Amino acid sequence: MIFLFTDFGAADVYAGQVRARLLRELTLPVPIIDLLHDAPAFDACAGAHLLCALSQQFEPSDVCLAVVDPGVGSARDAVAVKAAGCWYLGPDNGVLSVVAARTQDASCYSIRAPNLRLSASFHGRDLFAPVAAQLARNDASVLIPKQRLEVEFPAADIARIIYIDHYGNAMTGLRASDSATQGRLRVAGMTLSHARTFSAVATGELFWYTNSIGLVEIACNKASAAALLGLTIGAAAEWC
Amino acid sequence: MIFLFTDFGAADVYAGQVRARLLRELTLPVPIIDLLHDAPAFDACAGAHLLCALSQQFEPSDVCLAVVDPGVGSARDAVAVKAAGCWYLGPDNGVLSVVAARTQDASCYSIRAPNLRLSASFHGRDLFAPVAAQLARNDASVLIPKQRLEVEFPAADIARIIYIDHYGNAMTGLRASDSATQGRLRVAGMTLSHARTFSAVATGELFWYTNSIGLVEIACNKASAAALLGLTIGAAAEWC
Amino acid sequence: MIFLFTDFGAADVYAGQVRARLLRELTLPVPIIDLLHDAPAFDACAGAHLLCALSQQFEPSDVCLAVVDPGVGSARDAVAVKAAGCWYLGPDNGVLSVVAARTQDASCYSIRAPNLRLSASFHGRDLFAPVAAQLARNDASVLIPKQRLEVEFPAADIARIIYIDHYGNAMTGLRASDSATQGRLRVAGMTLSHARTFSAVATGELFWYTNSIGLVEIACNKASAAALLGLTIGAAAEWC
Repeated sequence: MIFLFTDFGAADVYAGQVRARLLRELTLPVPIIDLLHDAPAFDACAGAHLLCALSQQFEPSDVCLAVVDPGVGSARDAVAVKAAGCWYLGPDNGVLSVVAARTQDASCYSIRAPNLRLSASFHGRDLFAPVAAQLARNDASVLIPKQRLEVEFPAADIARIIYIDHYGNAMTGLRASDSATQGRLRVAGMTLSHARTFSAVATGELFWYTNSIGLVEIACNKASAAALLGLTIGAAAEWC
Repeated sequence: MIFLFTDFGAADVYAGQVRARLLRELTLPVPIIDLLHDAPAFDACAGAHLLCALSQQFEPSDVCLAVVDPGVGSARDAVAVKAAGCWYLGPDNGVLSVVAARTQDASCYSIRAPNLRLSASFHGRDLFAPVAAQLARNDASVLIPKQRLEVEFPAADIARIIYIDHYGNAMTGLRASDSATQGRLRVAGMTLSHARTFSAVATGELFWYTNSIGLVEIACNKASAAALLGLTIGAAAEWC
Repeated sequence: MIFLFTDFGAADVYAGQVRARLLRELTLPVPIIDLLHDAPAFDACAGAHLLCALSQQFEPSDVCLAVVDPGVGSARDAVAVKAAGCWYLGPDNGVLSVVAARTQDASCYSIRAPNLRLSASFHGRDLFAPVAAQLARNDASVLIPKQRLEVEFPAADIARIIYIDHYGNAMTGLRASDSATQGRLRVAGMTLSHARTFSAVATGELFWYTNSIGLVEIACNKASAAALLGLTIGAAAEWC
């Protein structure tokens, strides 16, 4: 499978162009999954943590094109990471670094594909898509080993909001552990207790829970936690 | 075909995970259609009427995953309905009940799939997707017959707004009949007359018409009826 | 490949119905690409210029369903254009006319498919989808040659905003040429200079650049140019 994780916008004109380019280059039918096209725009760090949480669903030989790339067209490198048998492709701005840091024996590569004609602003279509198609057919000839990524975010959790979904639930960069359910979370001046799921609390009640990708998430039963608390990407959310 | 009808959000992180899980479980290539991921959030009743109108396009052996599920993780049952040869899967909160009530000889089942590992909040991915894949390959072994659904909305039309599209057209839960074109519709203090289509009225003029899925819809030529009338999901729209 | 270019809304209930209808009618597996479902609503002229820029990615025998169709259900003709080996299908309201005007030896056809049952408002699903499927399998029997399109926009560039993406970048109807980088662009009372890409300017700085589909685009590094300048579809953007 090929997974697309970008900030290109699900409703916008970019994801379809990436898909078309992939399909032109693939010789075998490989499913292409639009995993997320609304990763927080320009925010490689939030994207890196969200991607890592979502990658639990990947399996060996899957390819993930991970493009949150405000520096497109600059001198930043284009890289690949192999982690737990999966390929990740993206800019060397940190977006792949949390997956790399948290996976034993992850390996890094620079992409050297001089024959591809690149636009100045859309390497998702012009570079990462054709290379993803090559990797999907087991051709890694455009990759050269790289000692380490140039931009590396720490492997540790981050105590802030990394994603807000359309319900208004706010995912943090904190991974939940089974023992944490006694924990109380400080966010926007409020202290929230744990509940197992939405229906365990009253309508309109705020809580935190372990979401379906293993992150601590701030939520409200049948209302928008983000609106109630005025949350935005980057807001602090800390254990207390 | 497998149809996805949810309130997961087309731009959000959930629909791709459902699709990936389906593709992991399917052994044959079955087209998966994102029919709607922005069903009114948390509103099983509006969703039930909208799903029923959309189901006219389904054909025997299609499978529809219909998940509007604010009670996920609670004791609510997970059910399947077989109606006119199609399978519908969803929570037992009424979302499947209008299809069931309006179809002769519909049959109901509880889903019993104890081997699936469920998150507390994402049964669309963890339960309904793998069961949909099983049904798509004609394996109904996880279904046990159920006398009736626990939550049943009436089969009758509902005289309120059940969906507002991005143009600002507002669909009601009223099915249009051929003879109804003389009818006048009362909504937000205004009385609207019928027109056959948008171009039959002046730019900016409000009207109602029979939409492409057979429902009475409040519309405006080249403008947003919902904005002009201040309509929201649930607003009354009644014949007068 | 079949490309979908519409104003149906990526998050809305229409694109899935078109896809389902296409898949019902296709006998071979043909990839269907959601190229854009949020073309400026009702605006055939903006759509025509945007479609033409996007069509650079099409290859011979591709089929593009291009439906921006506020006049659906009226007497407007339904047409096909063959240009550079690709088929384009849509209403005869100008949306196909820029592709036709800019392509040598483009040919026009009326669609005559009297056996199709049409709703009054959704010819994307009821007419253009089944005809697209026919063309994808090389059956053009429902097309009859037409002297020329009834609504024709000029082939020349238009000096206004034709699309605003979710980052707030604003595409103009001006095609960029290699020699134009000295040009200054007048928009919303400001005069903008050229930069090659986002990272070439400071954060928050406005500029214009040649975007990935060859159009002059107004942008801002890590901020929304459209919000900063108050741009909407149709706003003037002229060389000065």
